[in-house]
Amino acid sequence: MLTELRKQLPAEAVVTDSDVVEGYRRDSADLVAAGTPLALLRPSNTTEVQTIMAWASATGTIVVPRGAGTGLSGGATAIDGCVIVSMERMTIIRNFDPTNGTVTVEAGVINADVGRAVADRGLFYPPDPGSFEVSTIGGNLATNAGGMRCVKYGVTRNSVLGLEVVLADGRLLRTGGKTIKNVAGLDLTQLFVGSEGVLGIITAATLRLRPTPVATATFVASFADLEAGGEALNAIFASGATPSMLEIMDNATINAVENHQRMDLDRNAALLILGQTDGSDAERQADEIVDVCEKHGAELAMATSDPQEGEMLMRPRRLAGWATMEQSPTVIEDVGVPRTRLPELLGKIAKISADTGLSIATVGHAGDGNVHPMLQLPDLSDASRARAMEAADQICAAALELDGTITGEHGIGELKRHWLPNQLDEVSLDVQASVKRSLDPSGILNPGRGF
Amino acid sequence: MLTELRKQLPAEAVVTDSDVVEGYRRDSADLVAAGTPLALLRPSNTTEVQTIMAWASATGTIVVPRGAGTGLSGGATAIDGCVIVSMERMTIIRNFDPTNGTVTVEAGVINADVGRAVADRGLFYPPDPGSFEVSTIGGNLATNAGGMRCVKYGVTRNSVLGLEVVLADGRLLRTGGKTIKNVAGLDLTQLFVGSEGVLGIITAATLRLRPTPVATATFVASFADLEAGGEALNAIFASGATPSMLEIMDNATINAVENHQRMDLDRNAALLILGQTDGSDAERQADEIVDVCEKHGAELAMATSDPQEGEMLMRPRRLAGWATMEQSPTVIEDVGVPRTRLPELLGKIAKISADTGLSIATVGHAGDGNVHPMLQLPDLSDASRARAMEAADQICAAALELDGTITGEHGIGELKRHWLPNQLDEVSLDVQASVKRSLDPSGILNPGRGF
Repeated sequence: MLTELRKQLPAEAVVTDSDVVEGYRRDSADLVAAGTPLALLRPSNTTEVQTIMAWASATGTIVVPRGAGTGLSGGATAIDGCVIVSMERMTIIRNFDPTNGTVTVEAGVINADVGRAVADRGLFYPPDPGSFEVSTIGGNLATNAGGMRCVKYGVTRNSVLGLEVVLADGRLLRTGGKTIKNVAGLDLTQLFVGSEGVLGIITAATLRLRPTPVATATFVASFADLEAGGEALNAIFASGATPSMLEIMDNATINAVENHQRMDLDRNAALLILGQTDGSDAERQADEIVDVCEKHGAELAMATSDPQEGEMLMRPRRLAGWATMEQSPTVIEDVGVPRTRLPELLGKIAKISADTGLSIATVGHAGDGNVHPMLQLPDLSDASRARAMEAADQICAAALELDGTITGEHGIGELKRHWLPNQLDEVSLDVQASVKRSLDPSGILNPGRGF
Repeated sequence: MLTELRKQLPAEAVVTDSDVVEGYRRDSADLVAAGTPLALLRPSNTTEVQTIMAWASATGTIVVPRGAGTGLSGGATAIDGCVIVSMERMTIIRNFDPTNGTVTVEAGVINADVGRAVADRGLFYPPDPGSFEVSTIGGNLATNAGGMRCVKYGVTRNSVLGLEVVLADGRLLRTGGKTIKNVAGLDLTQLFVGSEGVLGIITAATLRLRPTPVATATFVASFADLEAGGEALNAIFASGATPSMLEIMDNATINAVENHQRMDLDRNAALLILGQTDGSDAERQADEIVDVCEKHGAELAMATSDPQEGEMLMRPRRLAGWATMEQSPTVIEDVGVPRTRLPELLGKIAKISADTGLSIATVGHAGDGNVHPMLQLPDLSDASRARAMEAADQICAAALELDGTITGEHGIGELKRHWLPNQLDEVSLDVQASVKRSLDPSGILNPGRGF
């Protein structure tokens, strides 16, 4: 089958060297088993992606699209006999329109590179998943990636105006455009964002940029108990403040970070609230948030408008993942609840930790009610993995009991698919399958993923 | 056919009295011819909507869903032999969660009533189409309605977290939920928003509220020429200001308003820029916008933080539609362009006005590049309507030449369908038709509308 494809693509676009292919078999979901692909395909332009899909469609070959492989749900893990289509070589910034605040980039452009390309014109691209220095715009779009700045600026779907997509049969679809508002036809742009590669391969996107804030300020507050911290979070929102980041770290995370690097964090604190404000009244808003935290029982609360000091204050949050992973193999979970229910969720997670005997450190985007319980495995044995799966299942159940979601920003991928029927009913799953069939009737695009 | 339906619904839900039905045959798109419906259906709850759709599906009856009938594209105009399903009786606010800032309302709840229901808890619902005092949430969702506040808070799709939808076959679909972030499965919520009744009937929605700003300020600036005004608009954005409204009125609109009610507007001004800022630094931001306008050649520019004075300053914009309609029969167009191209668009509209001999007054949401050229017809004769259609066609062509869209917030409906192939290619239209077929295989839901 590959012989026919090799005739149509440049030699370097079709890779079967097993040592090379091996590096593309998995994304970052350690609990998902990887299959053995037929080949790794590395198209360098949209026409080559069309060639690949036309060939895959004709031969019935399964296609697994892939960005940088930072996904945590196994949505880019190889399936036996598939071709992995890596978008890493499509890295052209096709158009930058600073006055309108739009940029059109290919799918393989790294998130942080978009930011760097537009910064000197006083603009930034808001979505900032933890992986932003390595993950690609295509992957960010396919998973509707989130990040810390989403609490003010929205998730990836809120920063995309149009897409270029190659369909299952190789046809090229263009959606949306360059305008901020657009209601011409069904919004196919929004349909493809977050579709995890099951409807088509996103090859390029027009993104919406925002003016770089004229100032930022940073705040941090520690709480001796979860309830007080939870009430402070709600009070921050009720105050009308619009923080550009609003994060939490629990006691286990605080200690993991302090173990990793001494920062004089309070090892007894139940909860750390930390974040930023931006805009011309950034300092005033940060001061007001500190006031609110103090009124709601913060042990220690402070704000700064000094950018360097601010980075120091945010550093524990940025290190949280690394610090936890340094201690032990870590599975990063991802659930969401209405934000008032965060303290309840944290209480349930503590109980799950006690029940399963797994240490769980939780960080997250409190302002959006989206947290990442980090399951710390003693080792990577099958028994430990099974225990992690059991804890993850219980965390998903806890989120659903609290009117929440089993995934806030990481996606369903393959990892969470068995849990989805607990959140979505049969009608919803059936409608999703219908939409999928309408775009990919033979089911070659990332089957078994996304829903 | 109706006999069977009458058995399954309360008597008051099935209306065939032609005097009553007559009032439901049209929406507000004067250029679209209305058909003769079989009946008007007025369900009072979701189960009745399910009964209607199961019956319509079994009998192959065409269904045209309808909110308040304020649509300007004919998306709710009767089709011969259809049933009109008016959602006006589904007006229950099912749940209000002030701490999480969410409210779940039925489709027939009026937009302004949502605002009134949540105001005393310090919250507001941002999307504010011009019709917000009469239009329904269901209609707003079906058209992805816009409004003045969208420039800061986004359009309707950015304020919805979940939907309840009755499908073509009568099944009940629930999408999304109560969490701000949610990537569990394909985002069906976003697929239904803006789908103009062709995929299902939205019966209820969970909406996202925002804290009422602690302060607002208002600014206004007049310009002797369009180019200077256009440069001021771009400079406002480049400054990092985030106005909560940023509107324009052209010379014809200024004069229509001044004719309607003396306000001492400058009848010679080419462009009026007016809007609001909000938040704790509202006054400062409004002052900065005034500064920017003055630097870019404003003849007169002022700001106020007094709410009453602010309402006075915004009054010309709010009266613009009425003032124009008072002068003559008016067709309100709706196009969008990348915002830097607004001056070019206004120039093209002036030429179209001269070529067709129709007076065209243009207002709009400059911050989003979305404007409403208001075509002033001498009368409602067939010849005048044809002239209006010709001018509307030329305006759509002008928007597309400038990388724009033929509709920014009013939708395709029936009116703009013949223009859509000039914006979307065959692949896009084919994909839309596939998605439609996957959800409504027999094509009974609002056929011939939306795409």
